[in-house]
Amino acid sequence: MAAEKAFTGNMKDLTSENITENVQIINSQCDDRRLKFLINRLVLHIHDLVRETRLSTKEWMAAIHFLTEVGQICSDARQEFVLLSDILGLSLLVDSVDHPCPPGATDPTVLGPFHTEEAHEIGHGEGLSHDPDGEPCLCICTVKDLDGKPIEDAKVDIWETDSKGFYDVQYANRDGPDGRAVLRSDAEGVFWYKAIVPVPYPIPHDGPVGKLLGRLKRHPYRPSHMHFMFEKDGFDPLVTALYLKNDPYIDSDAVFGVKESLVIELEEVTDEKMEEQYGVKIGTKLLRYNFVLVTNEVAMELRLEKAEDAMKAQAIDVLFIDGLPVPALD
Amino acid sequence: MAAEKAFTGNMKDLTSENITENVQIINSQCDDRRLKFLINRLVLHIHDLVRETRLSTKEWMAAIHFLTEVGQICSDARQEFVLLSDILGLSLLVDSVDHPCPPGATDPTVLGPFHTEEAHEIGHGEGLSHDPDGEPCLCICTVKDLDGKPIEDAKVDIWETDSKGFYDVQYANRDGPDGRAVLRSDAEGVFWYKAIVPVPYPIPHDGPVGKLLGRLKRHPYRPSHMHFMFEKDGFDPLVTALYLKNDPYIDSDAVFGVKESLVIELEEVTDEKMEEQYGVKIGTKLLRYNFVLVTNEVAMELRLEKAEDAMKAQAIDVLFIDGLPVPALD
Repeated sequence: MAAEKAFTGNMKDLTSENITENVQIINSQCDDRRLKFLINRLVLHIHDLVRETRLSTKEWMAAIHFLTEVGQICSDARQEFVLLSDILGLSLLVDSVDHPCPPGATDPTVLGPFHTEEAHEIGHGEGLSHDPDGEPCLCICTVKDLDGKPIEDAKVDIWETDSKGFYDVQYANRDGPDGRAVLRSDAEGVFWYKAIVPVPYPIPHDGPVGKLLGRLKRHPYRPSHMHFMFEKDGFDPLVTALYLKNDPYIDSDAVFGVKESLVIELEEVTDEKMEEQYGVKIGTKLLRYNFVLVTNEVAMELRLEKAEDAMKAQAIDVLFIDGLPVPALD
Repeated sequence: MAAEKAFTGNMKDLTSENITENVQIINSQCDDRRLKFLINRLVLHIHDLVRETRLSTKEWMAAIHFLTEVGQICSDARQEFVLLSDILGLSLLVDSVDHPCPPGATDPTVLGPFHTEEAHEIGHGEGLSHDPDGEPCLCICTVKDLDGKPIEDAKVDIWETDSKGFYDVQYANRDGPDGRAVLRSDAEGVFWYKAIVPVPYPIPHDGPVGKLLGRLKRHPYRPSHMHFMFEKDGFDPLVTALYLKNDPYIDSDAVFGVKESLVIELEEVTDEKMEEQYGVKIGTKLLRYNFVLVTNEVAMELRLEKAEDAMKAQAIDVLFIDGLPVPALD
């Protein structure tokens, strides 16, 4: 503990009218200006939530139990708090705030709880799925910058479910990573690989978040999609996904991730030249997409601009520390 | 799942500008009006928090990890989410909102995470602590209504730490409940028992909440206190505590629970009549307090009045379901 001594202020007789300001005062001993800003805005919002809804002790206790259950079901293979954030639209919102997207760039979308660090690196043309029941899908993509210049050697992390709608980590007795791989783009910005046609699936809904969805009369399904994460020095990391047109859940994604710009229609391999070049049969499903990354400079500029607007709207004089806003007057 | 079918709305292309409204629309399928109100205000506040602070993906991930840790450290003997709620002033605020206190009634205060249901019922004059190192303290209290009429047969649940500042449940190898007991008030509203003089103690601070306190440069101490919970048909349940004057932490309680009206000065047993009547030695510390409960009717009236004011301040037309407000227009 940094300061195990009595605070010199007076924290007695706090009521619903004066408690917020006083909790903020005691937190203002914090010397991390960003943390202080975050915690004090959090305190304001959760206090306002209680005051505005007249939250009862019973409801508060139900919330405590709910959050405890969410925490306790988390494991190496399951992140229920990410799920909770996802179904409340929080994950998508954070993405939008942190990764502003100028015209022409690929939209970001939710990471979801199933990304892992264990995918193996594969060469172009190799497969990432070992599911014999999956419908083969040839994927040919490019990654370029806003000027259309290919980005070479971008790290592309790709993950999808098997044909039953489960990620590898959802199997207790799995042998290793499956349905996921890392590739590197070539000098033309191209990366191509073999996958399976994505299927719709419910997010894990046997836990507290699934129960909440049930009480809200919401279904737990995500439309068919394939996840992508791009990393390249000098560029803002891009977490995104491609969604299949005509999926029954395309307009009601349980985690709000779908964007028109990320909705694609699968083609089919129709000519023999492709059959030979890519080692697939005529009629194989074909996914094509051209990803566009934003440089760190452009992303930062946009982020600061939007942050300044947001802070102005709150009439807070702003100062940036490590690219993140804090009140100038502390 | 109650409704595993695609929602008929369109949830695509959500941005930081339109996501809140759309998440609220999809949640509006919920047929529990109170839950819908709570969840939609929650969504508004957490979204505003992200927009106003420009929360980064890294900070979001740190919050996910923090909440996961909080959940995972919870056990039968430890409720870290209650601790978190306590140190953010949320617990005290919920108490204030749910248990409005008219003049003359005993102020409520935080429950804390150490109440259990396992305390044994003891008779008047019996002891609730078996700690040989604790300084004996005779406690003589009454419980009455706002008109000064004694309340007979109120269930009084009392708990305190041992002389080292630990509750029974904090010991892994304990034999059973200690430092806690349940008593019943007599026809005069009196209940008396033997306890030990409360000591200040830190809330458990070896976990994520303790780490957060450290980063906020806040100490984890609570001033010396004894907890009380009153239950009696017809009366609003009262959760409160008495605090010792001159405690070094009396003005800086880590969980914001202290109220002047609950601060007491211990007396000492000085006359032989008391020595004989209560079976204690001259010089024994003496705690006296007269608790005043509020009837359900008075509590409900005050609660509704304050709820109506709060909803008016938000310009929400109000309707009450089971005593809790929801918007009249749904």
